[in-house]
Amino acid sequence: MNNLAQRYSIKHEIAYYECDINQQMTLPSLIQVMIKASEEQSDHLNRGSSYVNQLNLGWVITNYEIDVDRMPRLGEKIIFSTLATAYNKFFCYRDFYIEDEAGNRLVTVSSVFVIMDLSTRKIKAVDEEIIAPYESEKIKKIKRFNKMQPLSNPKTSPFKVRFYDIDSNKHVNNAIYFNWLLDVLGYEFLSTHTIKNVNIRFDKEIEFGNVVDSYYETEITDNEDQIISRHQVKVSEELCCEAEILWNKL
Amino acid sequence: MNNLAQRYSIKHEIAYYECDINQQMTLPSLIQVMIKASEEQSDHLNRGSSYVNQLNLGWVITNYEIDVDRMPRLGEKIIFSTLATAYNKFFCYRDFYIEDEAGNRLVTVSSVFVIMDLSTRKIKAVDEEIIAPYESEKIKKIKRFNKMQPLSNPKTSPFKVRFYDIDSNKHVNNAIYFNWLLDVLGYEFLSTHTIKNVNIRFDKEIEFGNVVDSYYETEITDNEDQIISRHQVKVSEELCCEAEILWNKL
Repeated sequence: MNNLAQRYSIKHEIAYYECDINQQMTLPSLIQVMIKASEEQSDHLNRGSSYVNQLNLGWVITNYEIDVDRMPRLGEKIIFSTLATAYNKFFCYRDFYIEDEAGNRLVTVSSVFVIMDLSTRKIKAVDEEIIAPYESEKIKKIKRFNKMQPLSNPKTSPFKVRFYDIDSNKHVNNAIYFNWLLDVLGYEFLSTHTIKNVNIRFDKEIEFGNVVDSYYETEITDNEDQIISRHQVKVSEELCCEAEILWNKL
Repeated sequence: MNNLAQRYSIKHEIAYYECDINQQMTLPSLIQVMIKASEEQSDHLNRGSSYVNQLNLGWVITNYEIDVDRMPRLGEKIIFSTLATAYNKFFCYRDFYIEDEAGNRLVTVSSVFVIMDLSTRKIKAVDEEIIAPYESEKIKKIKRFNKMQPLSNPKTSPFKVRFYDIDSNKHVNNAIYFNWLLDVLGYEFLSTHTIKNVNIRFDKEIEFGNVVDSYYETEITDNEDQIISRHQVKVSEELCCEAEILWNKL
């Protein structure tokens, strides 16, 4: 971890509509608030979306690795902190720390951001001008994430991209993917399991009007209190997102 | 209006994920925050959901009448106020006022709440014990809302109730209905129109696993800058919710 990078924190009280039936914050809501912290940091450093868009560029998130000690609960006041730790030619690495008021770490997230040319929709090399104020460390190394296993015999459900899935940034909100991934697991599973670890990769943008196929399968582990779910999100057979989730039984 | 009733306010900063592509707060997000204000008031008066549930009762919203001067915008700090103005044998009337920091009224909402027996799922007479702390006026009159016209030639789209449509209160969150109602109007319409007035009635609870059919039609008005949309939400042909929305062209 790079302790020299600028750190930014916001406090957030968990509302009833951000919680599931177990009074725990949902993963889509958690991701939304987390990204709000990073957007506020960018605004604070004069590197917000208006600055980046005026260069005809936009940030795109390609990976999250999420470790959950416990999810925030209804009514808790939670601190969402973030820092842009490091970058190389094409990839920017950002960490998030979610802590309760007593400073106990609840959730840790590593993420990868890239810069996209808004006209060509292609990835561009990281611009020093954009990244400098975050005081991230320049590195040569490219971080590798665990490779995800293919699905052998998946089930699937279709989802239509809705108007309100597109946020004020005019993209499908990152958090919405988690709705598609998780919903297929069903009421019985989701009300009796809690997320321990998530590894997710975003491969391709999804647009309004697309029909999304959310594929999944579950796999037992050596630990009888844990289960793995594997996920692929496809549009017209093309892979847009893959994820592996480790669950604890509640 | 009953100025004697207890008034309760919360301040809320509008986040990017609560806004549509026009940087305006979405109606589903607005309803969620508004109801948070009333839930916090109930907690504050020791009449929160734990108190009500322990009597084997629950609050159910049956109507909203929403008047929009303008919707809150991204980044604004907005005051959501509420007071329980009046009640009669079966109906409790609650108003909401949404104002900017300068005190300008943005949105006004009248609503009707009833008390439901959690075992029989039937409406019960209002219990004085529950309602007293709000200092609402006891009235004889039953308020009438505008009757909604039947749809003559509606279009329809199906929606599956998702796990995260159910909130920590274990019901389909009221705000979710607005997602179903509005999404069918499509990208082109929703990105070029803004809501002026909503009249909505909730007739029947919707449960996890239901497939919801969202019917709608639009009608031109004498004013060429306005259009009306009429909506019905049905589960297996049974009417669960009706609404009429008056839109201004953007």
